Amino acid sequence: MYRFTNDYSEGAHPRILDAMVRTNLEGNFGYSTDPHSKHAHELIRAAIGRPDADVHILVGGTQTNATCLCAFLRPHEAAIAAASGHICVHETGAIEATGHKCIAMPAAEGGKLTPDTVRAAVAAHPDEHMVKPKLVYVSNTTEVGGVYTTAELEALRAVCDELGLYLYLDGARLSSALAAGGASLTDLGRLCDAFYIGGTKNGALFGEAVCILNPALKPDFRYIIKQHGGMLAKGWLLGIQFEELFRDGLYFEVGEHANGLAMKLKEGISALGYAFGSDSPSNQQFPILPNRVLDQLKDDFHWEVTSKPDAEHTEIRLVTSWATQPEAVEAFLSALANAKE
Amino acid sequence: MYRFTNDYSEGAHPRILDAMVRTNLEGNFGYSTDPHSKHAHELIRAAIGRPDADVHILVGGTQTNATCLCAFLRPHEAAIAAASGHICVHETGAIEATGHKCIAMPAAEGGKLTPDTVRAAVAAHPDEHMVKPKLVYVSNTTEVGGVYTTAELEALRAVCDELGLYLYLDGARLSSALAAGGASLTDLGRLCDAFYIGGTKNGALFGEAVCILNPALKPDFRYIIKQHGGMLAKGWLLGIQFEELFRDGLYFEVGEHANGLAMKLKEGISALGYAFGSDSPSNQQFPILPNRVLDQLKDDFHWEVTSKPDAEHTEIRLVTSWATQPEAVEAFLSALANAKE
Amino acid sequence: MYRFTNDYSEGAHPRILDAMVRTNLEGNFGYSTDPHSKHAHELIRAAIGRPDADVHILVGGTQTNATCLCAFLRPHEAAIAAASGHICVHETGAIEATGHKCIAMPAAEGGKLTPDTVRAAVAAHPDEHMVKPKLVYVSNTTEVGGVYTTAELEALRAVCDELGLYLYLDGARLSSALAAGGASLTDLGRLCDAFYIGGTKNGALFGEAVCILNPALKPDFRYIIKQHGGMLAKGWLLGIQFEELFRDGLYFEVGEHANGLAMKLKEGISALGYAFGSDSPSNQQFPILPNRVLDQLKDDFHWEVTSKPDAEHTEIRLVTSWATQPEAVEAFLSALANAKE
Amino acid sequence: MYRFTNDYSEGAHPRILDAMVRTNLEGNFGYSTDPHSKHAHELIRAAIGRPDADVHILVGGTQTNATCLCAFLRPHEAAIAAASGHICVHETGAIEATGHKCIAMPAAEGGKLTPDTVRAAVAAHPDEHMVKPKLVYVSNTTEVGGVYTTAELEALRAVCDELGLYLYLDGARLSSALAAGGASLTDLGRLCDAFYIGGTKNGALFGEAVCILNPALKPDFRYIIKQHGGMLAKGWLLGIQFEELFRDGLYFEVGEHANGLAMKLKEGISALGYAFGSDSPSNQQFPILPNRVLDQLKDDFHWEVTSKPDAEHTEIRLVTSWATQPEAVEAFLSALANAKE
Repeated sequence: MYRFTNDYSEGAHPRILDAMVRTNLEGNFGYSTDPHSKHAHELIRAAIGRPDADVHILVGGTQTNATCLCAFLRPHEAAIAAASGHICVHETGAIEATGHKCIAMPAAEGGKLTPDTVRAAVAAHPDEHMVKPKLVYVSNTTEVGGVYTTAELEALRAVCDELGLYLYLDGARLSSALAAGGASLTDLGRLCDAFYIGGTKNGALFGEAVCILNPALKPDFRYIIKQHGGMLAKGWLLGIQFEELFRDGLYFEVGEHANGLAMKLKEGISALGYAFGSDSPSNQQFPILPNRVLDQLKDDFHWEVTSKPDAEHTEIRLVTSWATQPEAVEAFLSALANAKE
Repeated sequence: MYRFTNDYSEGAHPRILDAMVRTNLEGNFGYSTDPHSKHAHELIRAAIGRPDADVHILVGGTQTNATCLCAFLRPHEAAIAAASGHICVHETGAIEATGHKCIAMPAAEGGKLTPDTVRAAVAAHPDEHMVKPKLVYVSNTTEVGGVYTTAELEALRAVCDELGLYLYLDGARLSSALAAGGASLTDLGRLCDAFYIGGTKNGALFGEAVCILNPALKPDFRYIIKQHGGMLAKGWLLGIQFEELFRDGLYFEVGEHANGLAMKLKEGISALGYAFGSDSPSNQQFPILPNRVLDQLKDDFHWEVTSKPDAEHTEIRLVTSWATQPEAVEAFLSALANAKE
Repeated sequence: MYRFTNDYSEGAHPRILDAMVRTNLEGNFGYSTDPHSKHAHELIRAAIGRPDADVHILVGGTQTNATCLCAFLRPHEAAIAAASGHICVHETGAIEATGHKCIAMPAAEGGKLTPDTVRAAVAAHPDEHMVKPKLVYVSNTTEVGGVYTTAELEALRAVCDELGLYLYLDGARLSSALAAGGASLTDLGRLCDAFYIGGTKNGALFGEAVCILNPALKPDFRYIIKQHGGMLAKGWLLGIQFEELFRDGLYFEVGEHANGLAMKLKEGISALGYAFGSDSPSNQQFPILPNRVLDQLKDDFHWEVTSKPDAEHTEIRLVTSWATQPEAVEAFLSALANAKE
Repeated sequence: MYRFTNDYSEGAHPRILDAMVRTNLEGNFGYSTDPHSKHAHELIRAAIGRPDADVHILVGGTQTNATCLCAFLRPHEAAIAAASGHICVHETGAIEATGHKCIAMPAAEGGKLTPDTVRAAVAAHPDEHMVKPKLVYVSNTTEVGGVYTTAELEALRAVCDELGLYLYLDGARLSSALAAGGASLTDLGRLCDAFYIGGTKNGALFGEAVCILNPALKPDFRYIIKQHGGMLAKGWLLGIQFEELFRDGLYFEVGEHANGLAMKLKEGISALGYAFGSDSPSNQQFPILPNRVLDQLKDDFHWEVTSKPDAEHTEIRLVTSWATQPEAVEAFLSALANAKE
């Protein structure tokens, strides 16, 4: 059985696990006040080119989004997101649970938000009888594998400046976005009010590093982390993981490995004549395959179903990660080639 | 200047105001525990054919919707509403402020929800990574003047039973819906889990009477009213108003008066060859008129703009109420007939 | 039966009711954007000596406190209040329902907060593992009838400045506090970050006028009012009432009338040799009377029980208002004098 | 430097870390739907003697308390806790952030709640103008090291049954409470509506296992976990840790080890003639030592200060854990014996 189910099916990259084992008994202060955490924060500040950034590492993605939006928004302020965005769909209303509406807008190609969409959301909310749009939420990569270019993020930054909005980026799969040639870490440091660098899906056991650039959003963030249950007692575990990810480029390697195998899948599946639900340059691929073919593959490979375009076809999601082996990809392409339609 | 701006531009129906003046100094216990409130509750229970109903009269509509949904839903449960629904758009995120997502679905003709739409909303939320749809929110009349028939509400009740959902009806403009031949008060008593009978837009100074039919939704509702700031100290003021509205049919008269004049507007405007943005049988009419015509009327009449279908035309909203005078309608139709395109 | 139950047992002062009747059909824009509201806001700004104040009139007291604290505080920030304070006890957790902790501190004489108490509350919350005290809540009069002097409020202002706290005053019974020689309206305008001038218990049918002085607390307050269900559709009703209260001193007269009768009660009861649970200079009096005496009075007078100091005695609360008649006070004192211990 | 700072200064018990390393690459479904999690749940159900329990493992303690209380309580319902309780003081208002008041009551000896205290809290909240007490929160051990006996918990269960309250126990330091002879795991399974078995302070890297016994509290708990950001993507990490803790008694060994060393500290310090702020039978000890003595120890040992009883003395907290070495205790006692007062 080869798994393409998701990018969080295995534990940690071996280098990260080694670091955790090595430091297990050294004794550290709690709640991310330890030297490993401070060092990790330094490494991240250097990587994003913002020595002034506040860095806080939380445990998981939904927790991070909810904590950030709760910290950044006043009660009547809302987030603008693609209707397919993680906060709109896959977080069990965590943002609403902190009191804020997510304004769901139709996504453009690749699951992305555009400046025009942001403008339309703001125009539709003109007065105090409606929520006040205040934050633009994007994720990189998007839910359908899309990757924001530097120019696209610059355009979003410009519309945010024009309309008085914050730009927030969810980097749950950021290593893959970076490896796909999207906006760089220093672009994010330059363009976002805040963003997070995902660990869980990029080689860590868990951990998401929030970088706050806008000084107005920095005060008292640790209070909000604690209030939302995101302050890990053994916080150095987060520091150790990001130290390893950012010490010598492991974070980038992880994305390159995953994307390399994803591109092999994409090319191989295309070469066999199959189409995709989304043209993804990143570690999630969405081929549309005949049900009869999938029946022949399903005992040897695991994936998720994303939609059923017609009675005979299914769109599936294949995900690669740091843990995916080249032979898994080869096995899949070989089985697909041999399957009978 | 004649106002068709809305149905809350004047104070109270004279009979209601008289009752308030008459009882001003009689002395009453606070917080709706007085005899007037109890009597009003009795009259409402009789009118809806549900002697077992719990009745609570709150001050305003947004407050009532937020209090009800907060009381009825667990934290992860969501409301299904038309995307144009009041809770989705015009309540400044009051529902989200109590922690609940409003699932905005495309409205059918007349701004209505259909069983198929409800089914689609539930199907799109299959597991715990998403909110759990639990309550269907409809308003009667709808935001665009639509009126639910008995059969339509029965169909919604059936799908709610099938899927384990509550059916909640916002009756901000219920007197107009009743006068338009929509589902009757006893239909609402029979089909809803809870609904409210609007006072503010139906002759009262203020006041919205919540009727809770489902026993599971009754416990401790007064705590939630108080917590949401909806428990009026001088609660008998609410009782007195609904006593007068339901003593001898005033509530129905109010809707008939408003609808009668709205139908005159509709027929007169149609006879002049103009179209409508929505085919409304109730007290809100949405004619599409040439901008040049509106320019000639705007000094003598007041309305709200609802949309601009093209560069030369504007859809406006004309609203009638218990306070609208027949001469206002005649003046409008006459001015419209005389305006030059 | 004479009622000393509370100060919200009757409707409106006759002058206010007259104004409502007179303007019933004039037609006004909704949501407090009408000329009456604007005029009332002007009158209030003049009365408090702050032409720069933002004034917003809401419907009720719990709603007002919850709306203000929700608007003013970030999620981790807390209010400091006397343990007997209205927000700590009598609002069904309305403040907590907006996410904020009320730090309940022991009250000093008269139910008041002192600078030392405020300092102690702040000292007990040193870091991000605890909430951050940010707002001092006082009410004038207090729950036990206490009245803050100018000097006492100045001392609280000083400690708030020292510790970076907001000073917020709940004026549900402000006319009585003013008539008792407490801090004046211009003192409040000078010393508070925000406060509200109560209407419900001071002659109005309903209505509480929030005055926001601190510019940092002003933005978007109307959004928060709407989100909390406090934006009355027929908002001019609030304007009309406060126009009348502040046009020519009615607000002060109301408090003087109530306090005058309360002082008669206090003196008469004292003269009969009875003690009080609290030495109140305002419209609430808390005599401690023998149960056998109360049994003889209870068919002719109504009051609330506040505590049972011992098996033979009960502390009751007697409240006077604009609507209390002098003969009610005389009747009570006479009956008390005639009762047999 | 020997650390008695707390019981979360080191990583995981070596056996747990070994299990994580061993399973790192095996591949598992996410979100605690994997076989390790299911097995851990089974082991816990067996240990608490409740095959019908719902078990859910969350990441941290504040998160667990907030998730449980949010899931169990309706909006107007409140928790009763000792004023020193973790939810009252050390969770940055996490409970209030979910909308619920914590009713802080004076703790009895050992930081415990008693039936009389619970009764007093309920008696003080008689109607809908106040929150409704609904859940009794206790922690075992308490904040000052107290341990509930079986009889004490049975008495709390009885008062909860009498008054319609839930009994919830926070077991952040449960292994120490068990080792101290407090109520057993099967007692908890029999007496609580819900409780959690702490992992973070009892040998795990992180993880707190909620056991829900009351069927009314079970539905949809996973939705609330997810909404509160507590659903770990790599949820099998939680399962693996609790598998190891409950496979063959490691959870009990951990508590016995910590308590054994704590008792050595207690006896040694007592033998030197020093008093304690609290008579703790568990892994937290609170000796009161002369400041001059502490000055001589502070370069070699780390502790937290809990209070300053007078100008010459300080109460400190010494905490032991699975990771504490016997030589640390010996070194402390020896240094204390040698210090000059």
